[in-house]
Amino acid sequence: MENNRIKYYLERSIALAEDNCQNHKGGPFGAIIVKNDEIIAECGNSVTTTIDPTAHAEVNAIREACRKLNTFDLSDCEIYASCQPCPMCLSAIYWARIPKVYYAADKNDAKDAGFDDSFIYEELEKEEDKRSIRIERLRLPSSSKPFIKWKSMTTKIEY
Amino acid sequence: MENNRIKYYLERSIALAEDNCQNHKGGPFGAIIVKNDEIIAECGNSVTTTIDPTAHAEVNAIREACRKLNTFDLSDCEIYASCQPCPMCLSAIYWARIPKVYYAADKNDAKDAGFDDSFIYEELEKEEDKRSIRIERLRLPSSSKPFIKWKSMTTKIEY
Repeated sequence: MENNRIKYYLERSIALAEDNCQNHKGGPFGAIIVKNDEIIAECGNSVTTTIDPTAHAEVNAIREACRKLNTFDLSDCEIYASCQPCPMCLSAIYWARIPKVYYAADKNDAKDAGFDDSFIYEELEKEEDKRSIRIERLRLPSSSKPFIKWKSMTTKIEY
Repeated sequence: MENNRIKYYLERSIALAEDNCQNHKGGPFGAIIVKNDEIIAECGNSVTTTIDPTAHAEVNAIREACRKLNTFDLSDCEIYASCQPCPMCLSAIYWARIPKVYYAADKNDAKDAGFDDSFIYEELEKEEDKRSIRIERLRLPSSSKPFIKWKSMTTKIEY
C-alpha cells in the first residue's frame, strides 16, 4: 500500500514534467509536495518562463507549499520529484526540513538529456580552488559583525 | 586595486547583512551582484519575512538580477556574499552561471551563529541511504518519458 501511494505521486510528478515541457513552461521536471496524503503544491520547472535560474520544480513546489501553509517549515510534508533533486533543490529540501524525498529518474538520466546536475554534484565535492568557477574568501575584520548582532538580538525569528 | 574593489563590495554586503537582521528582515546575511562594476542587485536573507526557506541572500540577489537584466544567464556578473554560500546558494550560482564568487565569513562562522550550512555540506557528501532524511528512488518505466519528450522538441528554450 505504502509503495502504491509513492508510485501514484511519482507517476503524477512524471506526467507533470512531461506536460511542463510539452507546453513550453520550462524544463522536463515536476515535483509534488504532500501533507497527510493531500497535495499541497505541484509545480513544474519554470526557469525559462519566469526567467529565474532557481525556479526548479522542487524549489517552486517548496515556495508554493510554504505560501499555502504559511510556514517556512515543511517538516510534516513529503516531496515527490520526477527526477533526483539537484544539489540546489536537495539543499532547499533540507532548509525546508522536508524529511522524506522520493524520486523516479536520476541525475544520470538528467545528464543524458543535457542537464548539469551531476556536474554540480562533482563540483561541490572539490576544494574551492579546484572548482571551475573562481571562489575566493577575503578575511575582513567586520565579517563577524552580522553574527554578533544576530546573537545579541532577543526578538529574532529563528529558522 | 582589484583587491580594494572586492573589499568594497564585501564590506557593503556585510553592512547589508547587519542591517538586515537589525531591521528584522531575516537572517544575518547579505549578497550583492555586480556587472561591469555596477551593482545590479543587493539583497538580504528574507526566509522569515517572505516565508520562503529558499530566500537566502544569494538566491534573492540572483532572482532580482535576472529580473532586472531579463536573463537567466548571469555569466557576465560577480557575486559578493557576507558569508560563504551554503550548498543551495552555491548550486544556484552554478545554475545562474556566475563565474566569480567572493565571500567574507565562512560556514564555521555561520554554524557558530546557529545556521546549518556545514551540516548540509556534510549531508551532501554522504550516500543517500546514510543521510538524516529519507531519500528513496523508485524506478518506474515512465520516468524517462519527460526527457524523451524534451529531446524530441525542436523549439525548446535550453538553459
